[in-house]
Order: sequence, then structure tokens, then C-alpha cells
Amino acid sequence: MSNPTAAMLVIGDEILTGRTRDANMHFLAGELVKHGIRLAEVRIVPDVQDRIVEALNALRAAHDTVITSGGIGPTHDDITADAVAAAFGVPIDVRDDARAIMQDYCDRMGRELNDARLRMARIPEGATLIDNPVSAAPGFTLGNVHVMAGVPTIFQAMVAGVLPTLTGGDPLMSQNLSVERAEGDIATLLGGLAAEFPDLSIGSYPYNRDGVYGTNIVIRGTSGERIDSAMGKLCTLFPEAVG
Amino acid sequence: MSNPTAAMLVIGDEILTGRTRDANMHFLAGELVKHGIRLAEVRIVPDVQDRIVEALNALRAAHDTVITSGGIGPTHDDITADAVAAAFGVPIDVRDDARAIMQDYCDRMGRELNDARLRMARIPEGATLIDNPVSAAPGFTLGNVHVMAGVPTIFQAMVAGVLPTLTGGDPLMSQNLSVERAEGDIATLLGGLAAEFPDLSIGSYPYNRDGVYGTNIVIRGTSGERIDSAMGKLCTLFPEAVG
Repeated sequence: MSNPTAAMLVIGDEILTGRTRDANMHFLAGELVKHGIRLAEVRIVPDVQDRIVEALNALRAAHDTVITSGGIGPTHDDITADAVAAAFGVPIDVRDDARAIMQDYCDRMGRELNDARLRMARIPEGATLIDNPVSAAPGFTLGNVHVMAGVPTIFQAMVAGVLPTLTGGDPLMSQNLSVERAEGDIATLLGGLAAEFPDLSIGSYPYNRDGVYGTNIVIRGTSGERIDSAMGKLCTLFPEAVG
Repeated sequence: MSNPTAAMLVIGDEILTGRTRDANMHFLAGELVKHGIRLAEVRIVPDVQDRIVEALNALRAAHDTVITSGGIGPTHDDITADAVAAAFGVPIDVRDDARAIMQDYCDRMGRELNDARLRMARIPEGATLIDNPVSAAPGFTLGNVHVMAGVPTIFQAMVAGVLPTLTGGDPLMSQNLSVERAEGDIATLLGGLAAEFPDLSIGSYPYNRDGVYGTNIVIRGTSGERIDSAMGKLCTLFPEAVG
């Protein structure tokens, strides 16, 4: 597939220790598909600068776009902005426009813009801000890297803001057929179909519902016509699955 | 922390396209914590051999243990076993003991051990088998890499079989304090506490419950005594949070 590719970097001990089950990756995957961008890799790393820098530099060199999630709050373990600056080799400091956004938010909320909150106005040199309609503290874009908060409501709002700015491709479409046959019984037929439609991705996912073994077959691609054609062939292979 | 480290490699287009929300990572993270192994990195890659080989070789060189999930079924897109063999530079073929397991299962289920199912008896040279009490098709261990199925029930059973064979460290323990104050108001105090207890990990997770802003503070470490000590200090900092 020649669609643009994206990678995601999830930053956070809370995911790796099992405290929190990540929700952002699944959300982002669905949004990218609709926008015609292929999510090609995800990495999850702890709140350790060297690990973040290493992963970020590998991903931004390999993919058109990188989206990060997590580690941009006010506390000592929120080190993503510094790590991104280090990865790009640029300085980072409190920036006036980000400070103004934080000041305005604190004024409205009756909070003090203390040193901890000012950390969230530290932006690597050359970055543009990503709007945070939920809690003000901005994300930012530097090169092909978009740095977003890990709190799902904020992450989702930031994705909604950034996605229209990214070059998309043809949206990835899919059709699904559920067959009440074990995966091992239909694998050879599916392999033949996949060979016949090399431009499509044909996946199979076994299930067991109330003791009945079956397989969900998913055909994915960017051409609706080709998917229709493959699905037509699939239905002739498994006529009993056609409702 | 000097505990042994593990990495996880999730293999599957269905995760990256958003069709399926991965459940295995969160499960594994929790199990590893209990066993005193630190999950240090996760990567999610598509069903593409080069991507699997590249990620696997990076992870197995960097960590004590690697656990993979997905891509060991009977269909054309199940290429994990071949990719693992390629990563280790060893041949792969149907092995008698794995074939016997599959034959026995097929006999019991009244299924045919066809070419597709025989694919699941292909094991890289030098590997040992991982028992699959759910659907027979075995996983395998090669070097420090443990190759498991992606179907959650099977993955969980395989983890239960392998985990006791891994060298663990002191289990990671945690205590939690919920404070009804915004993260930005307590960040400086938390940073001070973190500096005072460098052997512990002190994380903070903001929440908004019915309009009330608060922060969950989580202290993690391998010494119960040190965690108690830090928690005692934390309670003197936020006496209103102590129930």
C-alpha cells in the first residue's frame, strides 16, 4: 500500500506497569484509517528520556508522521517535551504564547500559574502549538512529530485538530464475512484468494461462539471495486455464509 | 530498578487498523509486575516479515525476555514462526512432536490435519514448545523469545505456562493516594518527594469526577518499607486526603 504511514509513540510507566490500559492507540488507529493514513508501527516506552529519544528518532526517520501520547503534564515525570527537544537537538523554554494560554486558563479556573504549571508552557524551539480545548495546556508539532497529551479526552481533541492538516491517502475500506467453519478448514482457500488479489489485505480471525467454531474474514483495501470483486469471489467459495 | 526486563512484540494488522483493540499487553503487564519483571518496551508491527525480524532482533538484544503475541495460526498471513526463524537465522519445518499434538487434537475434534493446520506444526530449529491447552497449536521458545498466540484466552494460558520458568525479581508493589487537588497544584511537592525517594517511582494521574479536579498519586517500588515511608510522608503533605 502506498498510503502515507504514521507511527505512534506511547510514553508512560502507567501503561507498562499495567496500571492503565491504553485507549489512545485503538482510537488513533481508527481515525488514521478513515483519513487514509496507514498506522505502520507503535512503540510504548517508559518515562525515561533516553528511551523516548531513541524511539522517537527511529520512528520519525522511518515514517511520514509520528504522533506521541503522554508525559506532557506538570509533574516531575512529565518529560516528553524535553525528550522531544533533545531528539531534535533544539533548545526548550517557556514560550510567551503558551504562557498566555496557561495564564488565561488559570485566571478562568481561579488557579495559580505556578512553576509546575509553567512547565506545560515549555515548548521546543521551532514548534507550533496544538490546541487543547479541554484543559488548555498545549501540545505541539515539531517537524513531522505531533506531541499530544495522554488523557484520552485531550488526546482525542488534539487528534481532531491535527488530522485535517496531515496529507491523507485513499481511505482504507473493509468488508467482512463470517463463516461457520474453523480457520484451518478454510485457510488454503483464503490463501488462494489472497494470491489472486495481492493489492488487498485478507485477514482471518477465528472465533468460538457457544461452542460453534467460525472465522471472520476481513478484506481491506483502498479500491471499493476490488474489494467488491474479492468479496464476490469469497461468497462463491462459501455460499452457506451468504445470508 | 535492577529487576529483569521484558519486551513485548505484538504482531498483527488487525491491531494497527483499529479492527481489534489489543488486550494482551495490559494482561501481560500485570502478570510481569507480579513476577518482578519490568515490562520495558512494547512494539506493535504489521504482518510483514521484515518488520517483525527487525523489531524482534532489536528487542531480544536489549532485554532479558521477549514475548510475542499473534500471527501463529493456519492462514497465509500467519508468518510469525517464519519471521522468528529468519531473525535467528535457523531453518524451520514441520516437527514430529508438534505434528503429533496437532494430529491428536484433530482426531479428537473430527477435523482433518490438512496442509493449513500442518503450518502450525512448523517450528524453528532448536525451539522448545509452549503448551496450548485451548486449541493445541503450540507456541514455542527460542533463545529468550517466547512466541505465543494472539487470541487472548490462548495467550493467557501460554503466559501462565511460561512465566514460572522466567527469572523474576522482587515483585513491584504500589500504594495509591487520591487527592482532591489539581495536578498542577501538587506537582512541586510531588517532585520534592520523588527526589527524596529516588529508588521509588512516583506517578500522578489527574482526574475530573463530576466536575471535581483531583489527582491519583501512585508510589511504586520493590521495597514495602520504602513505599510505606514515602506514603507516610505523602500523607503529612496532604492530610485532607487521609480517610
